Amino acid sequence: MKFFEDIRVGETAEIGRHTFTAEEIKAFAARFDPQPYHLDEEAAKKSPFAGLAASGWHTAAMTMRLLVDGEFRPAGGILGVGFDELSWPRAVRPGDELHVTSEVLDVRPSKSRPDRGMIRVRNTTFNQNGETVQVFTGNLLVPRRPSEAQL
Amino acid sequence: MKFFEDIRVGETAEIGRHTFTAEEIKAFAARFDPQPYHLDEEAAKKSPFAGLAASGWHTAAMTMRLLVDGEFRPAGGILGVGFDELSWPRAVRPGDELHVTSEVLDVRPSKSRPDRGMIRVRNTTFNQNGETVQVFTGNLLVPRRPSEAQL
Repeated sequence: MKFFEDIRVGETAEIGRHTFTAEEIKAFAARFDPQPYHLDEEAAKKSPFAGLAASGWHTAAMTMRLLVDGEFRPAGGILGVGFDELSWPRAVRPGDELHVTSEVLDVRPSKSRPDRGMIRVRNTTFNQNGETVQVFTGNLLVPRRPSEAQL
Repeated sequence: MKFFEDIRVGETAEIGRHTFTAEEIKAFAARFDPQPYHLDEEAAKKSPFAGLAASGWHTAAMTMRLLVDGEFRPAGGILGVGFDELSWPRAVRPGDELHVTSEVLDVRPSKSRPDRGMIRVRNTTFNQNGETVQVFTGNLLVPRRPSEAQL
């Protein structure tokens, strides 16, 4: 568990692995993104995806799960307050095994609140071939170590 | 169902309603974002949220569902290729009823592909008090009407 002052620019973490199945791709889509190319192999063949593909929101949610389970653990949790970038350069297919690399790009103490700081982190999600399937760069709120904040 | 040439800058649509329950907030979090402030009322009281709050990814996924079910229907589906903005200015609480307003900000024919265009759409998710809980501005790929593209 890391407080703000423990986190350094350039720090990286390799996080988690998860294999997407056709069943979970369809189950997520049925609930949150019921479009033919996320629900049905035959319909997906005729779509721009040319085959069944996970909803980008499914990839985003599973990336979050890998981050929460991973070794990058800011004190107070992974508390996103905004994004600089979210993109899905390649489709996630049934059988794809994803993992995430997290890199700290920037570390800024809060000017108004001495008990916290902001860090900017780029989380890149790769498939088993090392191809990028998602990039999201987020700004996270991280508390400072309480003893210092209370001085 | 709308093709690229049917879509106008400034066009808006009011979309869907969905009420979040504590049970679904916790169920989504257990699968995708298992952090105490999304899982447990008591732990959430001591967190920066000061009470149980939905994962931002849950809000994003449910916003997508409202969009897919809604009246804004580009031909070929809602196919996001990137985002300019995604932010969660206010927490979503159990009992909150969300709806979405969608506004077309920009319409650009593709230079390289005569069969499609790109539109930029700002989707704002509000709670029942008219407070903004999510803003996402996305770039969508929309096909042109086939008869024109094939001329």
